[in-house]
Amino acid sequence: MNEKTKNKLSVAELNGVKILTTYAGIKKTLNNQDDLLLIEFENEAAIAGVFTNSLTSSAPVNYCKKNLNIKKEPSIRALVVNSGNANAFTGKIGDQTVLDISKNLSENIKCNMNQIYMASTGVIGEQLQSKLVIDNINRMRSEKKISDWSNAANAIRTTDTFEKIVSKSCTIDNVKIKIIGIAKGSGMIAPDMGTMLSFIFTNAHLSSSILQKILKPINEKSFNSITVDSDTSTSDTVLLVATKKAKHRKITFHNDPCLSNFKKTLQDLMLELAKLIVYDGEGASKFITINVIKGVSKKSAKKIALSIANSPLVKTAIAGEDANWGRIIMAIGKSGEKADRDKIKIFIGKEQVTDNGMICKNYSEARASKHLKQKEIQLTIDLGVGKSSSTIYTCDLTHKYIEINADYRS
Amino acid sequence: MNEKTKNKLSVAELNGVKILTTYAGIKKTLNNQDDLLLIEFENEAAIAGVFTNSLTSSAPVNYCKKNLNIKKEPSIRALVVNSGNANAFTGKIGDQTVLDISKNLSENIKCNMNQIYMASTGVIGEQLQSKLVIDNINRMRSEKKISDWSNAANAIRTTDTFEKIVSKSCTIDNVKIKIIGIAKGSGMIAPDMGTMLSFIFTNAHLSSSILQKILKPINEKSFNSITVDSDTSTSDTVLLVATKKAKHRKITFHNDPCLSNFKKTLQDLMLELAKLIVYDGEGASKFITINVIKGVSKKSAKKIALSIANSPLVKTAIAGEDANWGRIIMAIGKSGEKADRDKIKIFIGKEQVTDNGMICKNYSEARASKHLKQKEIQLTIDLGVGKSSSTIYTCDLTHKYIEINADYRS
Repeated sequence: MNEKTKNKLSVAELNGVKILTTYAGIKKTLNNQDDLLLIEFENEAAIAGVFTNSLTSSAPVNYCKKNLNIKKEPSIRALVVNSGNANAFTGKIGDQTVLDISKNLSENIKCNMNQIYMASTGVIGEQLQSKLVIDNINRMRSEKKISDWSNAANAIRTTDTFEKIVSKSCTIDNVKIKIIGIAKGSGMIAPDMGTMLSFIFTNAHLSSSILQKILKPINEKSFNSITVDSDTSTSDTVLLVATKKAKHRKITFHNDPCLSNFKKTLQDLMLELAKLIVYDGEGASKFITINVIKGVSKKSAKKIALSIANSPLVKTAIAGEDANWGRIIMAIGKSGEKADRDKIKIFIGKEQVTDNGMICKNYSEARASKHLKQKEIQLTIDLGVGKSSSTIYTCDLTHKYIEINADYRS
Repeated sequence: MNEKTKNKLSVAELNGVKILTTYAGIKKTLNNQDDLLLIEFENEAAIAGVFTNSLTSSAPVNYCKKNLNIKKEPSIRALVVNSGNANAFTGKIGDQTVLDISKNLSENIKCNMNQIYMASTGVIGEQLQSKLVIDNINRMRSEKKISDWSNAANAIRTTDTFEKIVSKSCTIDNVKIKIIGIAKGSGMIAPDMGTMLSFIFTNAHLSSSILQKILKPINEKSFNSITVDSDTSTSDTVLLVATKKAKHRKITFHNDPCLSNFKKTLQDLMLELAKLIVYDGEGASKFITINVIKGVSKKSAKKIALSIANSPLVKTAIAGEDANWGRIIMAIGKSGEKADRDKIKIFIGKEQVTDNGMICKNYSEARASKHLKQKEIQLTIDLGVGKSSSTIYTCDLTHKYIEINADYRS
């Protein structure tokens, strides 16, 4: 799909945040694209995070989780991200690699090891060379060649076809707040070069525990509401960092009404980043929004929406611009969630397809097919059995997905 | 893949079973291939069945389930199967269609309506014309042109590229018993022409309740252990019919030791039929056997095996003959089932890939790749956390799957 990087030019700097990027030689590329990112924070910044549910999660994921849980108000002084190697399924050697990199950097910055965070994306099962990373971190720090957010977003790319940055501003207590987010990902796992990563930075003056409480539900409605191929990476990571430089009054409660604009803006930003990942889905030709409404619970509505979004038969039908609504019925049925055949109303775009357990008398396949020729597809499923809804974003399944994932040797 | 129909010539007839097939015009084909099958039983035969778990199951599925539950020892006098129309998501009109067909046939045969069973496969959401089916049933019955098992297996085909018949013999109480099974299916749902169907017939003298107790666990290890694309049809049906013509002693208990040879043979037959469906998987170029061993429970081992079998990234890697074992790790991790990174041993063919949470020192990608160039792929995952195992059969994901499901308008 087309690049969606209009936000890139309006990205503002954040005080007290230093970005360094370089090509360290971890990622095998023809043109020496950056593969190492270091973000340093002048002062202790607040931090929150959500991670993959994979039980075979990567060494850096396990390390970040541990740091976040070491005390009630964890803090961060530096974030290291590399692309080209996921440091996943690398055994105890991989765990030690993270500790070695973290130890070296913490000594140089003069902070605790648990104030260093790390994320890695790329090949699974190969050892990440700690010396290579440490040497390049030390070189970047001595050279002091400052990079920008665009460099940062590019350094974490693997198979992504475009950089993903979104920046927004809002207010807390009438003080202007900036939020900047970068992300990478183009399949839940890209071919050998896995993972969805996102790092979000703000100058808001908020504690880590408040950030964590804000991040989790928003993550559920953004990054946890997209699916490209139903596959979950060993390394998925979302970190939210607050530099606390903004001069608003102290906030002590995550439900303080003065945070509503901040929350809304953060949600918009995370949803935009999540959608950029779907736009860049491997081989995607269409962006699909699946709205399941009137389900018995949020969880049930989400499970049905995901069952539709992850069905290869639904995804290929949409790629073929085929109004094959029987496949949607099949996907609802296989979800195992409560539904009543005679109450389900399916809409392709605005065209109602079913009613009373069968096809609508006025249904026009021509109108439905016309909608499916668009780039942005809307499917609405009114279950008619409750009051809860869920929205999932996905893309179609095309020849190009097979090409990217099967035809080229990794 | 190649046809696997070597059993076809050795299929024996079953006494008291009459097969009629015809082209009724339900299926839109160029060469008027049969689309209607009627099997009549001279006497009341015993019957057992297992069906799709879909909550949007088809009218004939709901009708068969009801007949089976009407009394402790249900019986069958005739089975009607049509291809070309699934009679699924056809509302109350679809329910009435089944009743109309059943009523007409039961009056002609002079039996109860609940002794007529029906299965339909094909387009979802279009009404099946009951008059068309009834007229053709009446015509076949008056013409008395007897068909054979090969005709029967062909009449139920939709996108299947070859007919699927397996026949075997065994003994109960030293009396020779025949078992003949036919099946159809080439995706869990084929493009618009859904469904896995299988009908198995034997001359064993067994009650319906004993058949049902035998069928369920064997189905779990055969038809419920295959997956093509993770999609579940609204119409999946397996029926097991016993004519009771064999002259062995009366069996009153499903665990009677003299049934062991029958059970083993039935299991072999059902597994062969199930494997034929995988061989005929849409666009499949490789047959994949996934053995998960030493899991904490059978359910857990099966969930992990299915997570690997249904992962588009694993399936495309195998299509590309790429020993991309990181994707297997990913699929184990995303299953949510208990696993211990440092205990997982992955084998591609006989080549051990992982040990101690990382790649084996002696691992040879060349040897693993050599195995992946075969048509029959073996993946073994030793979880090392328990004593339970599960085997799942699947196929790879190729360009041809996309072609079949997206490129041609249904």
